[in-house]
Amino acid sequence: MIGHGFMGAAHSVGWRQAPRVFDLPDDVEMAVVVGRDADAVARDAAHWGWAESATDWRDVVARDDIDIVDIVTPGGSHAEIAIAALEAGKHVLCEKPLANSVEDAEAMTDAAARASARGVRALVGFTYRRLPAVTLLRDLIAEGRVGRVQQVRAAYRQDWLVDPAMPLAWRLQKEHAGSGALGDIGAHLIDMTRFVTGQSIDAVSGTLDTIIARRPLQGSGSGLSGVAAEGFGEVTVDDVAIFTGRLAEGALASFEATRFATGRKNALTIEVSGDAGALAFDLERLNELQYFDRSAPEGVQGFTTILVTEPSHPYVSAWWPAGHTLGYEHGFVHQAKDLVEAVVAGTDPHPSFADGLAVQRVLDAVERSAERDSAWTSVGEPARH
Amino acid sequence: MIGHGFMGAAHSVGWRQAPRVFDLPDDVEMAVVVGRDADAVARDAAHWGWAESATDWRDVVARDDIDIVDIVTPGGSHAEIAIAALEAGKHVLCEKPLANSVEDAEAMTDAAARASARGVRALVGFTYRRLPAVTLLRDLIAEGRVGRVQQVRAAYRQDWLVDPAMPLAWRLQKEHAGSGALGDIGAHLIDMTRFVTGQSIDAVSGTLDTIIARRPLQGSGSGLSGVAAEGFGEVTVDDVAIFTGRLAEGALASFEATRFATGRKNALTIEVSGDAGALAFDLERLNELQYFDRSAPEGVQGFTTILVTEPSHPYVSAWWPAGHTLGYEHGFVHQAKDLVEAVVAGTDPHPSFADGLAVQRVLDAVERSAERDSAWTSVGEPARH
Amino acid sequence: MIGHGFMGAAHSVGWRQAPRVFDLPDDVEMAVVVGRDADAVARDAAHWGWAESATDWRDVVARDDIDIVDIVTPGGSHAEIAIAALEAGKHVLCEKPLANSVEDAEAMTDAAARASARGVRALVGFTYRRLPAVTLLRDLIAEGRVGRVQQVRAAYRQDWLVDPAMPLAWRLQKEHAGSGALGDIGAHLIDMTRFVTGQSIDAVSGTLDTIIARRPLQGSGSGLSGVAAEGFGEVTVDDVAIFTGRLAEGALASFEATRFATGRKNALTIEVSGDAGALAFDLERLNELQYFDRSAPEGVQGFTTILVTEPSHPYVSAWWPAGHTLGYEHGFVHQAKDLVEAVVAGTDPHPSFADGLAVQRVLDAVERSAERDSAWTSVGEPARH
Amino acid sequence: MIGHGFMGAAHSVGWRQAPRVFDLPDDVEMAVVVGRDADAVARDAAHWGWAESATDWRDVVARDDIDIVDIVTPGGSHAEIAIAALEAGKHVLCEKPLANSVEDAEAMTDAAARASARGVRALVGFTYRRLPAVTLLRDLIAEGRVGRVQQVRAAYRQDWLVDPAMPLAWRLQKEHAGSGALGDIGAHLIDMTRFVTGQSIDAVSGTLDTIIARRPLQGSGSGLSGVAAEGFGEVTVDDVAIFTGRLAEGALASFEATRFATGRKNALTIEVSGDAGALAFDLERLNELQYFDRSAPEGVQGFTTILVTEPSHPYVSAWWPAGHTLGYEHGFVHQAKDLVEAVVAGTDPHPSFADGLAVQRVLDAVERSAERDSAWTSVGEPARH
Ligand SMILES: NC(=O)C1=CN([C@@H]2O[C@H](COP(=O)(O)OP(=O)(O)OC[C@H]3O[C@@H](n4cnc5c(N)ncnc54)[C@H](O)[C@@H]3O)[C@@H](O)[C@H]2O)C=CC1
Ligand SMILES: NC(=O)C1=CN([C@@H]2O[C@H](COP(=O)(O)OP(=O)(O)OC[C@H]3O[C@@H](n4cnc5c(N)ncnc54)[C@H](O)[C@@H]3O)[C@@H](O)[C@H]2O)C=CC1
Ligand SMILES: NC(=O)C1=CN([C@@H]2O[C@H](COP(=O)(O)OP(=O)(O)OC[C@H]3O[C@@H](n4cnc5c(N)ncnc54)[C@H](O)[C@@H]3O)[C@@H](O)[C@H]2O)C=CC1
Ligand SMILES: NC(=O)C1=CN([C@@H]2O[C@H](COP(=O)(O)OP(=O)(O)OC[C@H]3O[C@@H](n4cnc5c(N)ncnc54)[C@H](O)[C@@H]3O)[C@@H](O)[C@H]2O)C=CC1
Repeated sequence: MIGHGFMGAAHSVGWRQAPRVFDLPDDVEMAVVVGRDADAVARDAAHWGWAESATDWRDVVARDDIDIVDIVTPGGSHAEIAIAALEAGKHVLCEKPLANSVEDAEAMTDAAARASARGVRALVGFTYRRLPAVTLLRDLIAEGRVGRVQQVRAAYRQDWLVDPAMPLAWRLQKEHAGSGALGDIGAHLIDMTRFVTGQSIDAVSGTLDTIIARRPLQGSGSGLSGVAAEGFGEVTVDDVAIFTGRLAEGALASFEATRFATGRKNALTIEVSGDAGALAFDLERLNELQYFDRSAPEGVQGFTTILVTEPSHPYVSAWWPAGHTLGYEHGFVHQAKDLVEAVVAGTDPHPSFADGLAVQRVLDAVERSAERDSAWTSVGEPARH
Repeated sequence: MIGHGFMGAAHSVGWRQAPRVFDLPDDVEMAVVVGRDADAVARDAAHWGWAESATDWRDVVARDDIDIVDIVTPGGSHAEIAIAALEAGKHVLCEKPLANSVEDAEAMTDAAARASARGVRALVGFTYRRLPAVTLLRDLIAEGRVGRVQQVRAAYRQDWLVDPAMPLAWRLQKEHAGSGALGDIGAHLIDMTRFVTGQSIDAVSGTLDTIIARRPLQGSGSGLSGVAAEGFGEVTVDDVAIFTGRLAEGALASFEATRFATGRKNALTIEVSGDAGALAFDLERLNELQYFDRSAPEGVQGFTTILVTEPSHPYVSAWWPAGHTLGYEHGFVHQAKDLVEAVVAGTDPHPSFADGLAVQRVLDAVERSAERDSAWTSVGEPARH
Repeated sequence: MIGHGFMGAAHSVGWRQAPRVFDLPDDVEMAVVVGRDADAVARDAAHWGWAESATDWRDVVARDDIDIVDIVTPGGSHAEIAIAALEAGKHVLCEKPLANSVEDAEAMTDAAARASARGVRALVGFTYRRLPAVTLLRDLIAEGRVGRVQQVRAAYRQDWLVDPAMPLAWRLQKEHAGSGALGDIGAHLIDMTRFVTGQSIDAVSGTLDTIIARRPLQGSGSGLSGVAAEGFGEVTVDDVAIFTGRLAEGALASFEATRFATGRKNALTIEVSGDAGALAFDLERLNELQYFDRSAPEGVQGFTTILVTEPSHPYVSAWWPAGHTLGYEHGFVHQAKDLVEAVVAGTDPHPSFADGLAVQRVLDAVERSAERDSAWTSVGEPARH
Repeated sequence: MIGHGFMGAAHSVGWRQAPRVFDLPDDVEMAVVVGRDADAVARDAAHWGWAESATDWRDVVARDDIDIVDIVTPGGSHAEIAIAALEAGKHVLCEKPLANSVEDAEAMTDAAARASARGVRALVGFTYRRLPAVTLLRDLIAEGRVGRVQQVRAAYRQDWLVDPAMPLAWRLQKEHAGSGALGDIGAHLIDMTRFVTGQSIDAVSGTLDTIIARRPLQGSGSGLSGVAAEGFGEVTVDDVAIFTGRLAEGALASFEATRFATGRKNALTIEVSGDAGALAFDLERLNELQYFDRSAPEGVQGFTTILVTEPSHPYVSAWWPAGHTLGYEHGFVHQAKDLVEAVVAGTDPHPSFADGLAVQRVLDAVERSAERDSAWTSVGEPARH
């Protein structure tokens, strides 16, 4: 595993729990964590139960006893590591967004395609796909329960930047993060929309905004928190992104990714409206799915709150009896499970790097649209460089 | 009262109830209802408790014993009737949208300004302003409880057009309705955003869509329902409108007006996020207001569901004890009350025709933006003709 | 109408609105309001739109031009007025609880039976039956949608007595109110349970409590609010009642009536669980009904929030389009409508005085059980005197 | 660990995760699992990551290399194993209910007291105490945020027995389970009420019911599910328990434990009302806590939904950033953490066996009350034998 911040902890839970909860076709050994600060990474590796730690990812990628390379560093470093790992014949799990540019994402996708031909697998970490309620949402759409999709609304609302004292973390710097709310959390919306509808997003019209443009420099911290140091710096990415997309079969989808939704902590919501029904999900209540069935008898129609904890629901039977809920981290356990199963079965898991590239292209089109006064912009057109 | 459809019934409740619930400075006599079909209007007038009915609004507007003219016909007819009534020295309550074009709305606003100079009042029927929770929302923002407004999200979601058998009502025809979901329900969003934030919307980027473009002709029906006749016709207005606006002080506001939100019946929602807190409202639970207070003690912050039924809440003390809820129609009672009070007090009530014109200009700018590939469009620029 | 407090206002809305909203078989004239304070009742009569006021209910009951006597005074006075009115051949609408004792309720029920034989109707004011969601709940049970009823939970939670400064209103004095939370709001629970299940409550085990036993004397006020005077007095009724009942077909029902549920303003909730499904209602969201259908497909079961505003729902078609909500007072409009229809049709409306007596017997049995250390007590046994 | 059913799996997660998530003062080795079927226990031990398995718990309890004995068998076997383990100097974590009788619970509590004197710790597994929202609820009451407790409502509602085909699991047999819904899930309510209020329950009045008294024999299965075999057997325990309790400082508490709440899967709810505020929790939304603050400004009072995922909330800082939710199993991780910390610190963790005994006494008093026609019964009186 390369990187040991927030996602380092979450992926560690995934690798630790998956083989002990699911009946995996092969066992998992948590070999080595890589970080730039030898002491810090050694501490985390020991704490999380990895056998070793290291400071040079190239060494690790070259090791014979490593089968899977799990990349949990900021987006700017994904391409180099992932391509090297794939070329070294390692299966790769790479965090989202796949890269910070379409160019990098294309190179990674090419590498993944070549690797796949050699039986090497690549997976991009849009983990939310693997929450039971999200997988169920997808399955119900695939079964035809919403009918023809006519509208999608997706929003990812957080509020951790409302406080002007929040320091200038890597997520607020273009060179590390590529983009801001758009690429970090908007990417989840794009992936989820593609996943649950099974349709591509072909054109977009979008607006980006940076509400607080100067922030204290960051002293220490990782993930979504941190301590301020002296001095100030410029926020070089968006902190609010609002965009509209056109799906392949014609439906409009509206998107909002923001870190200024005061009081909303991690509110990823999606609602898909079709001519036969509707489905809605809210990450803050991730064990629930809302379902409106237009074929229900007149007089008793309404949104049904499905508590997605039944044995028949995706991933659930390995866990607890009905009514016993799961949490955020379970998506990472399911991701680890699905990757191991795909590796052993010799099939390509989803979301593929091609999926990650498709997301990247939409992100790029949103940025291009924003630069063009929000005019509708085709995702298929050449990306920015 | 000119017109006797859905709004005719709702306004009748307003006029009937206001003097019997509130202590009005003057009494209300429900004089005459005007409609084009003599029998139908006579029946409705009798049913709703009006003294008379008539078929020619010009006669009624000319009568000496009429003080207030209440216009509840489709938007295309508002300008002519309202201007005539104001010029005849009648106070006017005119349903929203003020008109079907900026041009008409300007003429009406001019007429209202001239009338006001003569002590004649004009009010446009954005009734939702007068729901206790919406007035409270406005008051709490005015008190500074959300601080500086940083984002607004407003949506009005209905689903009555999901059914392709719904006939081609006047609301789906440009000549009567001016626009579709945009002007009919999007207008409420624009007015409410302006009302609660106290800010104008200065520029917009928007997209309009017509999901079902051909429908059966309408046999009979009013309001939101109807029976199909033989033959089909073209839907000449939008049925989904998605747009983004820039408020005067810089915040982004996102809007969605749709009749294809399967399962959402009358879901007008608005959420205002500021640097001190947030407030959210949902018309389907109109007795409630959600309030997030960033100054609450660490550890007990969250969205508070205020049940807006306390005697201290706007309009409530005239009604029932705490916990006893109001419904949709109460906004019309409060509107009647406020208009009578303003007339007697000799003050201009809100929302004024100028407010109605401001809404109309935003609607127009959305249409212009939609024609320009959704590019950002200034509301101040010359309107379409 | 005898009495002119909180219910006086609510019933006035009922009589005023019913003929203007529904197509009644006969018109309603709001004739005279009776109160003990001539000035006060004259003011209220004028305000609410009644033609006259009076101070002696006997005179009014004797008048030839009065068809319906509506009794909205405290429970202790119901029997005398209602019996006199029925004997004078007037149809009677009497507020709940029917009386303050089983004895009085029996006499009233006898009087109603005799009156019915002469074509005179009697109705007791358990208004909540006539909220669309409650009628729908009953209808769905009658259709078999919950199957065999296995449990009922009913609670009525208010918090207006949490404040020790709340004065000693008539509701807190045994001579006027008969009992406290039990008879005032618990009575609604008993009636609603009987109504929706169609079963009698045959035995009970209950506990009564008075949390704050001394309060300031009341200066002025009616309904649920008031202003304190000097001096203190004893609360002579319960302010919390918790009891369990056995329904005729064997199910257990649990009940709580309390005025110490901090933060709950008017939270009447009921949930009926059966072997085919469940239904749940909450008065603070009175336009909604929760429905769990065990016959729904595996994987999409859950509680459905039915927004009870469709034209097909009880009482709704006379009001507004789908999604446009009703409030607390609408039950009174429906009550007036149903009574007028019954009177004209020559049928006995529900809930009859016999229903009111049945409720009274359960209340009495709860008091007897509470006196017997909460031991199970048969409702059929002789009542206390 | 003795036993390897549902709780075997949950406790395994606890032991596996606690040292990898929290900074424990000592490491945890998962040594040996004991079961009666050698193959089955070996399989589970391997799957869950325990080093060994065994079939005789006495051997294991006697081993020198074992520090902690974790008992996850049905209640009937707890006393014998726990006492033996404590006497062998092992720290004991014993699942709830502590025992199936007061007598056994007393013996266990005596053994724990003797052991404590020797530095040996004992903990009973009322895991829900350790969900962040429940600990926060307790903390907020301790800080005085609800003021004087005036009422408690607690319910645990499941529906897995609504289906008459559910087989006769050990939970439905008195010799294994002691009691039914009462002892299995009602025990949680009693513990939680004691925990959050800090008060004992001194007297009770209760009713027990068995709605479906005959069920198919169980073929296989553990926890809450199973497969039917041929033949039928008698359900010898309650499946619904409704009772009222009197807390030490006078408040009434109402309780319901049921397996016939159709549509409610694992709905443990508790609401504590006091003269300064109220707090409410629902296990199906375990990341949330509802808080009503009577000292909030007039006009903005209401129930606040606290998303209990802030770093300042109990246990949360070791997990994820704000808004990233936890699930059911996290209570078991926190339980393992707290036990290890107490063992190393040399302090007695809560809930102690004395707490478990107190719960048992209340359960016993409910059964005695139920046998006495629900008459109020003192918890302090001699227990049944
Ligand atoms: N799937 C999901 O839901 C989420 C995905 N992410 C993604 O995970 C990635 C990491 O994010 P977080 O863990 O939140 O960030 P973080 O700031 O908590 O951790 C990043 C880690 O990468 C290390 N690192 C940075 N540059 C490195 C380099 N060149 N070589 C080796 N290590 C390096 C840092 O030292 C740190 O340990 C990002 O791509 C982010 O978009 C983040 C949060 C949620
Ligand atoms: N404030 C609010 O929340 C709402 C406002 N409205 C507005 O109210 C107006 C009326 O809408 P609805 O009542 O829903 O429509 P409707 O179709 O139910 O009724 C329209 C009425 O106007 C009459 N009418 C049409 N043209 C006329 C003319 N030239 N002269 C006289 N009468 C004429 C029709 O016969 C009918 O009685 C519209 O402007 C609409 O936007 C509608 C619904 C809600
Ligand atoms: N259906 C429902 O949901 C509700 C029913 N009620 C019932 O309505 C009745 C009245 O309650 P509120 O209106 O809340 O009380 P209130 O205190 O507001 O009004 C009572 C009225 O009765 C008058 N009154 C008292 N004794 C009288 C007498 N002997 N003769 C003539 N007038 C007399 C008082 O002056 C006052 O006008 C009670 O039986 C109560 O249980 C009350 C509230 C809700
Ligand atoms: N803290 C909590 O929230 C919960 C606590 N529990 C408690 O956990 C305990 C176990 O319940 P579940 O795991 O649900 O039951 P289960 O039926 O899933 O598992 C019981 C296990 O004990 C084993 N067992 C039974 N008798 C034994 C004996 N004499 N010696 C060795 N092993 C024996 C069985 O083979 C099985 O492996 C019970 O006391 C129950 O009340 C259960 C569920 C939740």
